[in-house]
Amino acid sequence: MSRKITVGAAQLGPIARTESRRQVVARMIDLMREAKSRGCHYVAFPELALTTFFPRWYTENQAEIDAWFETEMPGPETLPLFEEARKLGIGFYLGYAELAQEDGVTHHYNTSILVDPTGTIVGKYRKVHLPGHREHEPWRAFQHLEKRYFERGNLGFGAWRAQAAAEKGIFGMALCNDRRWPETYRVLGLQGVEMAFIGYNTPIHYPPVPEHDHLQGFHNHLVMQAGAYQNGMWIVGIAKAGKEEDCDLLGQSCIIAPTGEMVAMCSTVEDELVTSVCDLDRCRELKDNVFNFGLHREPETYRLIVDTKGPVEPA
Amino acid sequence: MSRKITVGAAQLGPIARTESRRQVVARMIDLMREAKSRGCHYVAFPELALTTFFPRWYTENQAEIDAWFETEMPGPETLPLFEEARKLGIGFYLGYAELAQEDGVTHHYNTSILVDPTGTIVGKYRKVHLPGHREHEPWRAFQHLEKRYFERGNLGFGAWRAQAAAEKGIFGMALCNDRRWPETYRVLGLQGVEMAFIGYNTPIHYPPVPEHDHLQGFHNHLVMQAGAYQNGMWIVGIAKAGKEEDCDLLGQSCIIAPTGEMVAMCSTVEDELVTSVCDLDRCRELKDNVFNFGLHREPETYRLIVDTKGPVEPA
Repeated sequence: MSRKITVGAAQLGPIARTESRRQVVARMIDLMREAKSRGCHYVAFPELALTTFFPRWYTENQAEIDAWFETEMPGPETLPLFEEARKLGIGFYLGYAELAQEDGVTHHYNTSILVDPTGTIVGKYRKVHLPGHREHEPWRAFQHLEKRYFERGNLGFGAWRAQAAAEKGIFGMALCNDRRWPETYRVLGLQGVEMAFIGYNTPIHYPPVPEHDHLQGFHNHLVMQAGAYQNGMWIVGIAKAGKEEDCDLLGQSCIIAPTGEMVAMCSTVEDELVTSVCDLDRCRELKDNVFNFGLHREPETYRLIVDTKGPVEPA
Repeated sequence: MSRKITVGAAQLGPIARTESRRQVVARMIDLMREAKSRGCHYVAFPELALTTFFPRWYTENQAEIDAWFETEMPGPETLPLFEEARKLGIGFYLGYAELAQEDGVTHHYNTSILVDPTGTIVGKYRKVHLPGHREHEPWRAFQHLEKRYFERGNLGFGAWRAQAAAEKGIFGMALCNDRRWPETYRVLGLQGVEMAFIGYNTPIHYPPVPEHDHLQGFHNHLVMQAGAYQNGMWIVGIAKAGKEEDCDLLGQSCIIAPTGEMVAMCSTVEDELVTSVCDLDRCRELKDNVFNFGLHREPETYRLIVDTKGPVEPA
């Protein structure tokens, strides 16, 4: 049975601070319909896809912060996206800010969900690697306060079997900064993930080391291509792109084959869909050979990866 | 004090089966002298640099196998390399097949050493990720019997402080297939390694998946560039290159900056030296910021990396 699925990376251009979720969802529905018309089984949207990238602003007003979060999924403003997906029979990946009540306590997560082509939420991921800083740093041209506004995800890196084309595939999720960390891909790969969705909001300007700004696009692709190859999985990277409230966000959303080859890439910084036919069985070319984990990995030599957080230098 | 060191990647062209170690050492001394004349503090040679890549042939004759191994380092044939290095005041990295007596038992390792500019062996590494297969597989155009002829290295991935330019640097080593595994770089990075030497013998033809042959060069660079960037370290990759006994070996030896940028690359498949001035302090641009491990790593979520060898798929 064929395990070829067609996937779309639905890049979003900038979202203004004043833009409502209804307006953004309308843009996403347009991309979803285009994806369906181009044969997609799944369409993937960026990280924090429903609003502007609010961690660029510092505030101590918790109500102002919470206004960027979703208290239910779907909620009244996102329900049309789910309804459209169900009508079209297309699955999707969506990133959003999640305000969760757990054991009577309020939590803030940078979250993504995987929705299968029947409209069912089959997986939820909460971002593990929160970048940036906790306190206001006025010297920066803009803030990156993910460590302030979010808690570290408490669900680990999951993997889910979900309907793909004729058969199910194994899907994983990650978000933005997670993609720079090889551990992310490896924990997914060790669960047999065949396709990972990774949404991102990446300012081209990195205030601590601005001399690396021109390398943002290179680094974005480098880490995803290496992660795809080293784990024999498809990777769909989806940007929020373009000049958003005076902050330039990297585009270059892409679909990467298990060989590490880029097979589709956005070339604008606007709403744009790129698609690719992805044969999940091609993962086996890597997973059964050069990256046959059961044959070649040597976990006894990897202990430092979990035994320490920071570096332990030789005497 | 300056922590800029000049390093040379001394690629070797093919070594014939009939070529003696003395002949090969003479080639290496030529490259070492050229390195010194170009200001190098260290020069790096390939994996199994003293002989042809013998794991391409199957034999059950243990004496025939052992003849490819060194029983002492330096031995009579390699001593001139050490003497020349000491005379020139240049350090080096060298890969060779090691026949070791440990607790009265004979062991076979695929080994490398780091020799500092005073001629002292300061570090030894034994290859962890042995590729290939254990049994004769006649369907292959050539064998890749590393799993037969070598034992897995028993020293883990070490890191050593060694004299660099004005100050010491932290060096690490790996060999060939190790470079495809992100765990290799991470275990080095977690020990603060600022420069890793990685020698390789990489046939361009990969018998199990020949349709990937044209990607060998891409994969070679992809994994080393990602490893350099994700750990903020310089990487020196050194090939045995060219048509060796009817087997085409990949060249493209290179020096990669902590940004992941390739700053030097060989463009022949012969004996060739490329050099670069490497500022070890530039590692801090990564290690103190985007890859500040102590601030951003989340080891609790990485447990699968050591808890399983092969994949554990979802139900």
